[in-house]
Amino acid sequence: MAPTQDPVVRINELIKGIEFAMLTTIRPDGSLHSCPMATQPVDRDGVVWFFSGNNTEKVEAIKTDSRVNLAYSDAGGQRYVSITGHAELVRDHVKAKELWQPLYQTWFPKGIEDPNLILLKIHIQDAEYWDGTAGRMTRLPGSAKQT
Amino acid sequence: MAPTQDPVVRINELIKGIEFAMLTTIRPDGSLHSCPMATQPVDRDGVVWFFSGNNTEKVEAIKTDSRVNLAYSDAGGQRYVSITGHAELVRDHVKAKELWQPLYQTWFPKGIEDPNLILLKIHIQDAEYWDGTAGRMTRLPGSAKQT
Repeated sequence: MAPTQDPVVRINELIKGIEFAMLTTIRPDGSLHSCPMATQPVDRDGVVWFFSGNNTEKVEAIKTDSRVNLAYSDAGGQRYVSITGHAELVRDHVKAKELWQPLYQTWFPKGIEDPNLILLKIHIQDAEYWDGTAGRMTRLPGSAKQT
Repeated sequence: MAPTQDPVVRINELIKGIEFAMLTTIRPDGSLHSCPMATQPVDRDGVVWFFSGNNTEKVEAIKTDSRVNLAYSDAGGQRYVSITGHAELVRDHVKAKELWQPLYQTWFPKGIEDPNLILLKIHIQDAEYWDGTAGRMTRLPGSAKQT
């Protein structure tokens, strides 16, 4: 079978098994910071959801600047993926329940009822992956949002 | 022995063995993109050097906005490091010779004489690492530049 051309399916193939992404945000002072986020698959709408504490510097950063990057690395498999997007802060009990995994109990002992829990909804604008043959990052066909 | 408090030594301990960092830059259209860079140790002046092709989108990005983030991930060892900095584009034959490693031959077949080769000099402003006990990113003491 030929490799699938659906960009969402392709991104999910590329990030599969990479446990954590590094999420880069722009803080109010303009500086770029990154922190690890437990990988979630990209959904059909080209959105990635994450759980976050509400009292974190990344949430403060997103409030003043929604631009983000998600970087996935797997040196062993020579897989490197960059996702460019905009983050939205969302409180959605139904969505939180749908996405919940036992692993998250570590960070949110009260589960989805935890008042500190907020969802990051990342709208993908563009995705690139490391093409070892070409020796450079290559845009994933169909991943760029028309603006 | 107590763990060393020298921030440069500490960063180098934290990133040791992580082969590639993901470098996030801001492109002229304002979007955040990342790409893998072969890890180099931080030098005594709090600077990280990288080799880059001059005809790359990251070099174009740095020309219009010098802000960058370097993200290091090692899921197995639960090591996650974020370096905040400013990138400078430098042509320095002596420095290139000093930093050259055989691995780079893959990207620059002509070695340090390659006209496409340029150095990225990243001045560290701040460094954070994942503190598993606290469950959050923690600033590396002494890493923040006084401004």
